[in-house]
Amino acid sequence: MSTDGFYSIIDYTVDSVDTQRELVDAFAEIQERWVRFYPGYRSARFHVSTDGTRVYNIVHWASEADYRNFVETSDTEGRMAAIRKALEGLSGEAEARMSGAPTYTVVREVGPGPQRLGS
Amino acid sequence: MSTDGFYSIIDYTVDSVDTQRELVDAFAEIQERWVRFYPGYRSARFHVSTDGTRVYNIVHWASEADYRNFVETSDTEGRMAAIRKALEGLSGEAEARMSGAPTYTVVREVGPGPQRLGS
Repeated sequence: MSTDGFYSIIDYTVDSVDTQRELVDAFAEIQERWVRFYPGYRSARFHVSTDGTRVYNIVHWASEADYRNFVETSDTEGRMAAIRKALEGLSGEAEARMSGAPTYTVVREVGPGPQRLGS
Repeated sequence: MSTDGFYSIIDYTVDSVDTQRELVDAFAEIQERWVRFYPGYRSARFHVSTDGTRVYNIVHWASEADYRNFVETSDTEGRMAAIRKALEGLSGEAEARMSGAPTYTVVREVGPGPQRLGS
């Protein structure tokens, strides 16, 4: 996996394993209904913490231009309403942990290799 | 990219683009000196927010057993000291945003596809 592309990262704390699973199900459906058919969409990957308290959704776009095109041409109001409804439908609590712009690039990847010894 | 494997996610807010770059450089070196040569290590990927306020380091292991072996057999004290030193050496501020266990699995991936229409 290279360092190209463009990402948005959606980041929540949740109160239980059940809420974690419900959040993933709801947000996966939002990807299918509102996002995955735009040009340059590559994937949305749902990382869940082993302790049941956190969910990261990492959405990968081919380029920043593809992401910007999605933002500018998609139904942002409808999508936001779907997200609010998804959050309200959870049986437990979920709190967004995003701060600032949720858009990212990958600037470095460290692969397997020999131990680098200190100077 | 499949949903297999095991992940740790290191998550910081920072005060500037400069601190963001310094944190990536320092933590990449820590991977090279303390982590990347353990069995099952696949990669560490550094995601930086476009607004200069956040850094995610996503470390990918082949399996949970490989991650546990790393934790149990590596020099945790030395690695933690290197992380503290790296944070102290930054010219700006960095604040950890991790909560609970920083270990993750990927439970779902939504690839490109047709729009799913609502029922």
